[in-house]
Amino acid sequence: MDDLSAFARQIFESQPFSQFIGARLTGSGPRDAEISLPISGQHQQQHGFVHGGVISYLADNTITFAGGLALGGNALTSEFKINYLKPARGSLLVARAHATGVGKRQAVCQCEIYSIEDGEEKLCAIAQGTVVAAAQ
Amino acid sequence: MDDLSAFARQIFESQPFSQFIGARLTGSGPRDAEISLPISGQHQQQHGFVHGGVISYLADNTITFAGGLALGGNALTSEFKINYLKPARGSLLVARAHATGVGKRQAVCQCEIYSIEDGEEKLCAIAQGTVVAAAQ
Amino acid sequence: MDDLSAFARQIFESQPFSQFIGARLTGSGPRDAEISLPISGQHQQQHGFVHGGVISYLADNTITFAGGLALGGNALTSEFKINYLKPARGSLLVARAHATGVGKRQAVCQCEIYSIEDGEEKLCAIAQGTVVAAAQ
Amino acid sequence: MDDLSAFARQIFESQPFSQFIGARLTGSGPRDAEISLPISGQHQQQHGFVHGGVISYLADNTITFAGGLALGGNALTSEFKINYLKPARGSLLVARAHATGVGKRQAVCQCEIYSIEDGEEKLCAIAQGTVVAAAQ
Repeated sequence: MDDLSAFARQIFESQPFSQFIGARLTGSGPRDAEISLPISGQHQQQHGFVHGGVISYLADNTITFAGGLALGGNALTSEFKINYLKPARGSLLVARAHATGVGKRQAVCQCEIYSIEDGEEKLCAIAQGTVVAAAQ
Repeated sequence: MDDLSAFARQIFESQPFSQFIGARLTGSGPRDAEISLPISGQHQQQHGFVHGGVISYLADNTITFAGGLALGGNALTSEFKINYLKPARGSLLVARAHATGVGKRQAVCQCEIYSIEDGEEKLCAIAQGTVVAAAQ
Repeated sequence: MDDLSAFARQIFESQPFSQFIGARLTGSGPRDAEISLPISGQHQQQHGFVHGGVISYLADNTITFAGGLALGGNALTSEFKINYLKPARGSLLVARAHATGVGKRQAVCQCEIYSIEDGEEKLCAIAQGTVVAAAQ
Repeated sequence: MDDLSAFARQIFESQPFSQFIGARLTGSGPRDAEISLPISGQHQQQHGFVHGGVISYLADNTITFAGGLALGGNALTSEFKINYLKPARGSLLVARAHATGVGKRQAVCQCEIYSIEDGEEKLCAIAQGTVVAAAQ
């Protein structure tokens, strides 16, 4: 698993968009991944909350990593669905995904996205999606 | 409708994240919106394709604007689902959303996201989601 | 294609649940399927409209057949999402699905479900989902 | 809550389709519902597994009841998404839904559908959807 975590970290660090948006892979396990994003002004929509597109990036990517870790290698998200529960603001977003159903070639993952506001975690969105092993 | 299009443009231009990611509202109608994004290196994932999170941003935001135009004012996307069909690369992404079902307080929208590669449009992803009118 | 349509019909007729609920495969094409369901009292929910579960069955199964026809053989729906637009009642439900994105092993399909009330088609629900080729 | 559980049971028993398909409301709580379905031959698809449409009915309806209980009254499912994890067979299906995010007018719910085979619970599908309070 240490090798797989290192592999995940290496892939994450080679994603230009994840660097551009300011995200970090802050956790990984055999079927789990956590991505964190310090919130700054450039992540906002017109009312000062975090843009839904930032949250959907977190859902997409955290699901990809949880599924890839569960499948043991290169993988990609083929689809997902997200429900926004509360507007997000504060200092940090944390997305945690878990591969709930794992087969040979695909993993179905669930993801929760939290905002940290005044030291308190608030659940902002939940997502569910499919990760498929990349063709070799 | 001209007023509503101007209102949409004004909202779009006040979204810091849309500016940050480099998107433009390139079309609007009574139930429709189009957002375009010139692709650059910072939008990529680890294999040189556009990151899924960029495409999910386009789905989220284009659905929001199509639904908001159909509902006639401030609105937000409460949920959506996206299927990725092909890896996206090339010079430009274009997302087009249409409000297929419009009620008093919510609009259900469908969105297609195309990449322009070598002058040809390729369908990269399709999405479907719900926009709700913002409380006044 | 005639062979494939005949194959589709044969599979449909060997689905006990489709017989039980009263559905019929009323159309098929290289990437398309249509399933119809004459509405009766047993399909209702507590307010006299068609139960959402009946409509979700139509989405699930019509997507399966459109995807299976596009993939050329045995297939199953791995996931779908449905938005209900209007309560359904009347004499008949008609679901039409189309495989929008077709790869070697999976097809992404879109489906519209209509009710026929007083001779008029009303769009009741839209769905989007993934069909995967069954392992041989 | 006892009143609300009784109200839920009364609504469930007035759903002709739930009676027709053979389902029972077997649990309810302030944000939770459980619906069970003894499996019989008429629920099958062409390979002898439970038809996806039966499982999607369970997802739809269990989400409706969990959301309605959380919102405190009449409610309807406006949309949901389901991922099938394993083919379902055995003696019984049990669907359990929980309202994860509850607002004034809508509740976002998650649902797990299990089959009981040889006395063992197997997770067959997971779903996520939105319930809205019915207009008074």
